[in-house]
Parts: sequence; C-alpha cells; structure tokens
Amino acid sequence: MKRYKDLSPSPRIILTPGPVEVDPRVSRALSYPMLGQFDPEFTALMNETMQMLRELFRTSNRWAFPVDGTSRSGLEAVLTGLIEPGDRVLVPIFGRFGYLLAEIAERCGAEVVTIETEWGTVFDPGEVIDAIDRLKPDLIAIVHGETSTGRMQPLEAIGRACRERELLLIVDAVATIGGVPVETDAWQLDAVIGGTQKCLSVPSGMSPITYNDRVEAKLMRRKRIEKGIQPDGYIEKDPSLFIRSNYLDLTQLQDYWSPQRLNHHTEATAMLYGLREGLRLVLEEGLEERFARHRLHERALVAGLEAMGLTRYGDDSCKMPVVTCVCIPSNVDGEAVRSQLLADFGIEIASSFGPLKGQIWRIGTMGYSCRKSNILLGLAALEAVLPLHGASIVPGAAISAALVIYAEGAKPDA
Amino acid sequence: MKRYKDLSPSPRIILTPGPVEVDPRVSRALSYPMLGQFDPEFTALMNETMQMLRELFRTSNRWAFPVDGTSRSGLEAVLTGLIEPGDRVLVPIFGRFGYLLAEIAERCGAEVVTIETEWGTVFDPGEVIDAIDRLKPDLIAIVHGETSTGRMQPLEAIGRACRERELLLIVDAVATIGGVPVETDAWQLDAVIGGTQKCLSVPSGMSPITYNDRVEAKLMRRKRIEKGIQPDGYIEKDPSLFIRSNYLDLTQLQDYWSPQRLNHHTEATAMLYGLREGLRLVLEEGLEERFARHRLHERALVAGLEAMGLTRYGDDSCKMPVVTCVCIPSNVDGEAVRSQLLADFGIEIASSFGPLKGQIWRIGTMGYSCRKSNILLGLAALEAVLPLHGASIVPGAAISAALVIYAEGAKPDA
Repeated sequence: MKRYKDLSPSPRIILTPGPVEVDPRVSRALSYPMLGQFDPEFTALMNETMQMLRELFRTSNRWAFPVDGTSRSGLEAVLTGLIEPGDRVLVPIFGRFGYLLAEIAERCGAEVVTIETEWGTVFDPGEVIDAIDRLKPDLIAIVHGETSTGRMQPLEAIGRACRERELLLIVDAVATIGGVPVETDAWQLDAVIGGTQKCLSVPSGMSPITYNDRVEAKLMRRKRIEKGIQPDGYIEKDPSLFIRSNYLDLTQLQDYWSPQRLNHHTEATAMLYGLREGLRLVLEEGLEERFARHRLHERALVAGLEAMGLTRYGDDSCKMPVVTCVCIPSNVDGEAVRSQLLADFGIEIASSFGPLKGQIWRIGTMGYSCRKSNILLGLAALEAVLPLHGASIVPGAAISAALVIYAEGAKPDA
Repeated sequence: MKRYKDLSPSPRIILTPGPVEVDPRVSRALSYPMLGQFDPEFTALMNETMQMLRELFRTSNRWAFPVDGTSRSGLEAVLTGLIEPGDRVLVPIFGRFGYLLAEIAERCGAEVVTIETEWGTVFDPGEVIDAIDRLKPDLIAIVHGETSTGRMQPLEAIGRACRERELLLIVDAVATIGGVPVETDAWQLDAVIGGTQKCLSVPSGMSPITYNDRVEAKLMRRKRIEKGIQPDGYIEKDPSLFIRSNYLDLTQLQDYWSPQRLNHHTEATAMLYGLREGLRLVLEEGLEERFARHRLHERALVAGLEAMGLTRYGDDSCKMPVVTCVCIPSNVDGEAVRSQLLADFGIEIASSFGPLKGQIWRIGTMGYSCRKSNILLGLAALEAVLPLHGASIVPGAAISAALVIYAEGAKPDA
C-alpha cells in the first residue's frame, strides 16, 4: 500500500515572472547520474559553467559561479561579504525587491539609507547620483528589473558615477539576466546577482553571481580559513572582521571554485548539470537573438491585451520586456480569474505584492515559457475567462492583433 | 558549431561518504515539468514532504522542512536563528565537522567553548554532561555521525541531560539521517539537521531540518516581517534582535512552509520533487529495514577488507555503520590508488581531512550506493589495484569473506 502517490505534476503553461517552464533539455540534464564533487569530470563541468556565466554576464571577471541556494542566497552572499557592520548602504527603491535589498543589508549590520520613487516608475539616474553625493554611502545596492512593478532601472550612468567615486555598485539582476541585456563590464557594475528560475529557465535553487577585482579586494580583507582545514602557520584575523555567514562566505566559495578546490559545501550536482545545460541553450541561441525573442513575444502579448481593451500598469518607458503588468478591471475579482485560468486551462499568471495586491496581474514572458504558442494560448484563455468574471472586453480581436506582430517577424524595436 | 559538449557524465560507483549515487526514481522525479510555487499541486507536494520528513526524523514536531541549500545551510539556519550575539555555545569536537559547527557558531556571534577528544573516538556522554555543568552554555551543538573519522556519538544520555537543564541541543545528523537511527523525539533532540546527498541518496542542494516548540519559542522572540510585505499595524522590533540572515531566517521559512504561505524565497521545484521521491523510497523500504540493509553491507565490506589484511582506523565501538575508514598501508600512495580506482574502474572512494589526510581512506556505504554489487565490485577492484601500488595483501580472500556475510543474510547485529 502506497501512502504517497507517484509524482505526476500536471502540465502547466507558466506565464508568471518565475519560476517558469524549463526546456526538456534542462530537465534531462537534471536526471543524469551523479559524479563526485572532486571527480575531474565534475570539476571540468564546474569550470565550463564559470566560463558560460562570464559570457552570460558579459564580463571578463575572474569570478562567476553559482551560489547554491535560491536567488536571494546570491544577494545575501554578496551583501554579507561586502557590508561590514556600520557601513552605510544606499538602496534606491522602486518596488518590493528594493525593500528586500534594504532588509538584507540591515541584517548584515549596515546603516541603510533609502530613496524611493513612485511604484510603476524608476529613478532618473541623476536622482540616484544626487543621493550618492548627499548621503555618501559606502556601497550602493539596486534592483535592475523589479518584477513587483514590472519596471527596469537604467544602470549605465549610475555605474559610471559609482566608478568615478570609487563606490561599489551591487546589482540585483535576478529577473533580467538572460532575458534582457545586463552589461556587467560595459556598465561598470561591480557585483551582479542573477536568478535561475526566470529568464534562464532553470529550476529555482541556484543563484549565479559575478564580481570584479574591486569587490574581491574588499572581501579578502575579511577572509578566514575554517578551523579543521587551516594550513600550518595560519594567522587568525580579528573576529570582528569575519564575514557573518560561513555558508555564504564568498572568500571560501571562490576557493572552492578555484583550481585549489578547497573543500566548502558539496556542490549541488544535479542543479549544476541543469544550470550548465540552461546556459548552453542560452549561448546556442545567442544573447542578442534571445533578447530579440523576448521583445517579439512581449510585443505580441501587449498587442493582444490592448486589442482586448485591457490597460497596462506603469510607465511604459521603463517597462521590463519580460513582465507585463495589467490593471485588473475594477469590477473583477483578480484571484478568481487566476484560479480559473489555472484550474480549467492549466495556465498560471501572477498577482503582485503590497499596495499592488489585487490591483494588477503580472504576465511573465521569460525563457522557455516565452514562445508563440504560450502567448496565443494565454491571450485566448484570458479572452474566454474575463467575461465570465464580469469584465467587458473587446471580443475576437486579441489573437489577430498578436498574429499581426508575429507576421511582421522579429522586427527590431524603434 | 557547439563549443560546449552535450552533458554525458561517466557512470560511477560512488563509495564515498557523499555525494553518493541516486536511485533512478529520484533522477526521474528531478526531470518532471515545473509547477508554480503557489500552485495548489505544488503546495500539496510541500505538505507531503513535511509529513514524510517527520517520519524520517521520528518526530511529531510541527516543523520539518528542507532549507534550500546544501547541508551546511541547514546547520547555519538553525545556529544563526538560535544564537544571539554573546550566547555561550558548547561544541564537543571529535572530528572536522565539529570544527565546522564551532566555526558557524562563532560567525553567528557566539562565545564558543569547545571540548575535544581524540580523533577516532567519541565522547563518553558523562564527559559532555560534566562540560555542560562546568561551562554553563546557553546552547549545545554536536555532530552525530562525524564522517571525517567515521565515528558516531551516542546522544540519548546527552539529550536527557540537556532537557533536564532546559538547554537546547542541536544535532548535525547530515551523515546519519536515513542510514542509521536518528530518534529526534525519543532522544530529546531539540533541532536536527539532515543532508540529502548521503544516506537519503538525493543530490546535494537541500538540507532537511526539524525543530520543536522550544526552539520555535526562542526563534519567535526575534521574528521580523520583511518590509514590502508587512501587514498594517506591524510593530518593528529592536534591530539588535534580528536574525542576522534573511535567507536562512527560520521564522520566515516556517511562514512560507505554513498554510499562510507568506512569500520568502522561491522553493527549489526540481529538488523538492527529488527529495520527495527520495523520502518515498526510504519510507517504502521502511526505516528499520533500511538501517538493517546498511548494517548488512557494512559487515560484508568489513569482512572483505579484513580478509585482505587491511587495518581499520578508529575505535570500532563507535564506528559509523555507513562509513568505513581504512588505514592506508605505510608504503602506499593513497591518492594514486584512488586515482586508479576512478580512472580504470569508475569507482570513487574518499580520502580525509587535516591530520588524517593521506593516512586513511574512507569508504561510504550510503543509500542507493549501499548494495551488494557495489560492495563486491569495490572489494574486487581494491584487491586488484593495491598490489600495483606496492601493498602486500592477502589475495583471493575478500570476495569469499563478503559472500559468507551475504549468505548469512541480514542477521541482526550482536
């Protein structure tokens, strides 16, 4: 008698800002047999993954590797390594995940200073630079793509200003990496944190990061080798300098990812297989081609939603190409619509957080989920379901509008 | 042109203390399509996994769930949640992973006090209890199965003593859970941390934990709800109380694992599928039957090694049933033997750390790797390879000796 049934998850069309569907090639990679963590075949895969991550992040940084945890483990690894208690950290906030950066920084012992702008917009880079000059932080941490509002912050001018002032700039690119350009070196970003379960279309559970020599120099001041594996003659540092986490200590993680392979955790074998395959898919497609694909399907989705008569939330000039926020019509129960989409059509779209809860739906078009059939099925289902929940929409127009975009093909953006 | 080749890891026989081979059913589970994190089908799988973990840990604790990270993320989650800066933490050390507990506790701001015993032995429980009464710690953290030396610490008397003194006892059962008895409730263990990649035979990347109401009460004094999702009327606590990690904050993790489902990280979908399937396999086999299987194969391995004339390391009375430590014969290059076993036979055995590096091999018999064909192939390969590296062994006796044990069947231990 089996008390727990065989696993058999229902097939889903996942149009949320993550976790999204994964390519069957990634699923297959996850299922390959184990290698030991110091097996030369496995360390070769680790090295290849580092090289692929450099290409993904568009960087020549030495350090580019995944942290073994979900996206916020990568954010916390970078912040807890760089923040010494009492450091002043500036977090410009334009949505929920800005609050998360501030929250993590506070727990690392930072004096956190924030500036905020209206949700649905982003900062003019000048505002951030003025705040830097006024508040004189030691570090700046900012979100690139804020999925809670669907907005994307331009970073190039902020990166230049930070470099001129010799300030470290930490960027949360969890929701943008692999879907839209993230130019680590060209934009002078000192540390960038990505996520797997969004535009990379790999299951949640790893956080790819990269950081440059400036970051490494700051980290190394705090480096500590564990008791039990300390070499002879090792001199202990002042304990107040120690990085507060062992699990997320980047100075130890980078030793583990270096040819030295100093033992730390046991690398997550199956997830590493999956990440490597996800990165191969990204690089085979080509970064520019992948970004263009995300823009094409976004345009088709937006055209369909507009034809239906739905209103988009937020400032279009800073819209994330991979998340489209739709205002829930005033007489409609947004959660009831979501539930019916899932139960009857197997389609998942997202709600949002805090002040936007019940106000908007968020439709993600990320990675493997971002394909023509999903866009058309999503629009068709929404068009069918909305009138059942009291929405008055224009019937019969959405699919045609989307198909017009597809017929035009992957025309470059204006 | 493909720059990165198709993934095709060579088949391996993994006889290390982890990561070990995984059952094909677990591999298949990893490859199933994604569900959204709040999809009712997925939250049902989360709830089932909690129930299975309670059975695994032999507890009626409310809280039993995986932390999304490798084993030490679970250790750190428990320690960073329970240790307030300045707390005195006692760590009895009998190998490398005791040092790790001390290391993590120090970084959490604890005043760490340690007692040590010779590697290859464990503590008489009375020594630990004396140390408790002498050093008056706020918490005790101890390793159950110390893979660096292959020894296992009896915990029942220590658990009873801690409960009598109203002290919290934290147990690292990373290497023992699912392979030998870990009696959370019967032994009065307050928090227990397991690993996936050892006796559970699930890939590395999750750390199942459980803790009781006494632990929860201490954690809740420090609970903080993130900005961005705080309810109206929320009153902020003194920041000096905050748990230092957001990612590993158990008060937030338990909200995420409760019916409330308050958003924290995005649960690692594929790994959760794999853990659930690994736990199903454990429970289908039966815990007692599984422990007996581990003992049987250990006996066969030990008989074979003895017949070959090899010497075991350490005190047999506290040997871990799932790790067998073998002294490297004095004229033999232990790493050369390991390399040939891997290169020519596809068999991996382990070396050890610190003072035991180059002194012993460690042969793991864990989970799916712990089966008759692996034991016999491992013995045959070792017998073939050792003479090539200058070891003088008794030839032709090991397999017969192991087969005698198998012929006797799963006879209970004396």
